[in-house]
Amino acid sequence: MKLILDLDTGIDDAFALAYALASPDVELLGVTCTYGNVLVDDAVRNTLALLELFDRPEVPVFTGPSPSGFEVAEVSAFIHGANGLGEVELPEPAGESSGDAVAFLVEAVRIHGDDLVIVPTGPSTTIAAALQDEHFAQHARLVMMGGALTVPGNVRPWAEANVWQDPEATDEVFRRAADVTMIGLDVTLKTLLTYQDVARWRAVGTRAGTVLAELAEYYIRAYETTAPHLGGCGLHDPLAVAVAIDPSLVSCLSLPMQVDLAGETRGRTIGDLSRVAPEVEVAVGVDVDRFLGGFMERLTRLAANS
Amino acid sequence: MKLILDLDTGIDDAFALAYALASPDVELLGVTCTYGNVLVDDAVRNTLALLELFDRPEVPVFTGPSPSGFEVAEVSAFIHGANGLGEVELPEPAGESSGDAVAFLVEAVRIHGDDLVIVPTGPSTTIAAALQDEHFAQHARLVMMGGALTVPGNVRPWAEANVWQDPEATDEVFRRAADVTMIGLDVTLKTLLTYQDVARWRAVGTRAGTVLAELAEYYIRAYETTAPHLGGCGLHDPLAVAVAIDPSLVSCLSLPMQVDLAGETRGRTIGDLSRVAPEVEVAVGVDVDRFLGGFMERLTRLAANS
Repeated sequence: MKLILDLDTGIDDAFALAYALASPDVELLGVTCTYGNVLVDDAVRNTLALLELFDRPEVPVFTGPSPSGFEVAEVSAFIHGANGLGEVELPEPAGESSGDAVAFLVEAVRIHGDDLVIVPTGPSTTIAAALQDEHFAQHARLVMMGGALTVPGNVRPWAEANVWQDPEATDEVFRRAADVTMIGLDVTLKTLLTYQDVARWRAVGTRAGTVLAELAEYYIRAYETTAPHLGGCGLHDPLAVAVAIDPSLVSCLSLPMQVDLAGETRGRTIGDLSRVAPEVEVAVGVDVDRFLGGFMERLTRLAANS
Repeated sequence: MKLILDLDTGIDDAFALAYALASPDVELLGVTCTYGNVLVDDAVRNTLALLELFDRPEVPVFTGPSPSGFEVAEVSAFIHGANGLGEVELPEPAGESSGDAVAFLVEAVRIHGDDLVIVPTGPSTTIAAALQDEHFAQHARLVMMGGALTVPGNVRPWAEANVWQDPEATDEVFRRAADVTMIGLDVTLKTLLTYQDVARWRAVGTRAGTVLAELAEYYIRAYETTAPHLGGCGLHDPLAVAVAIDPSLVSCLSLPMQVDLAGETRGRTIGDLSRVAPEVEVAVGVDVDRFLGGFMERLTRLAANS
């Protein structure tokens, strides 16, 4: 199958990228970059550097739109580090952006249709721009990390970080896109990575294994402050990639969704009672053991082979 | 099976009572009354009057606690009428309250245990008081109408009316009660009664049939103002009774629940990430046709036989 990832390349985005690269039978057509955990240009640089670390420099990287004046939230910098990669220093990448993310996405759906799944793991800004193209809206298959339906949000009691950054864009996704699966905090806070898991990557002894371990340790340390009851860090973005490849990892509710755009609950993802929007598949259950097993198996193999 | 209803006897509470009375193999042990759609004393009077209308004056009615100074919300009076029964005038009942609702509930669970299901359809105040009894907390089976998990609320974008009246009490229910099914707006706004349905009761030609028809018409008219997109009125409370009798009418998510008690979303029912509370069965899907068929069959038969 063919994948495109739309990343705001912080730490769990890096794991999502690694998961896709290490999945057999997955052809990663490209990575589009957006803002959120970092500025869009930093997301591009981080993605290029990671692709070179993992010996996949041929995967093209594209630059998405970014609101003028956007600044990284303090909590994002705390969780992902000021550079988005937990202060891990990677060599300046040799590659550069291959151009406009929106044009690439629209063209890719036109060429590959149903064979392609797009996995956005940041704010919905780039996808909303692509949805202005009617063919994209009708044919793009989207498995997005974002939102929270049955549990509280993480940046506000009612809002998850990705949706919070651009509520109008996610509302557009729910209303215009024909095929959306939402991988929200409902499931991603159940799939936790621990220090014990991470030790396996360090033991591999490669540069890639060491980087993966350092990224994870930074991320888990941040979670000890922001969500101490969890006992690990949430694997938000890689779960969305995993579901794109194998939808049977989650159980879903089908319902039309909206994002609250006004009032006290701006940024909340919730069912749309007017039922004019298409149904979204909202993941509410996840096979934790199967996902974590596959995640560790893939990233450990990537660490060994890079 | 044995049932106790805890009603704030407005219009859909009246339908819930009728549903229970018309269900074969159901023994209605009593009705406890609470405030909400009406004052608690009006709920007692309405319940007694309805039981006499339906030729079941032997069912005892009890009085629950009410916050001092409680006043019926304007929207409740609009939906249910100032008397709670759509301005339909029933004869002053001959019966009177049989005493304290909390004591009756605690005693009933002690006597009947698992054979009994309690169906609260108003604020959780009375049930929270009964939950101070540890045996009640461990053994009461509760199927409550209230809350909204996957759809917006009805009195605030984040809050359903019953929970909104006493958020602390519903939070107590979620945290202390061992066996709770939540029948919220997620499902009750899918089970709609229309003018066409109601005409069947009027056609029966009895006083009970006429009263049921007048109640329903008042309620549907109110919904044309408050929720015109629905095309009918939501059968909130009778659905909870129906599920108490036949749980297979709904599909549920199992998750620990909380009520937000502070901040902008006070009164919201949402999953509890700390996962210290017992799991609640939250209904998210309903077999609409089977419920509506059984509802019409029961109430039409009750109209004919009263």
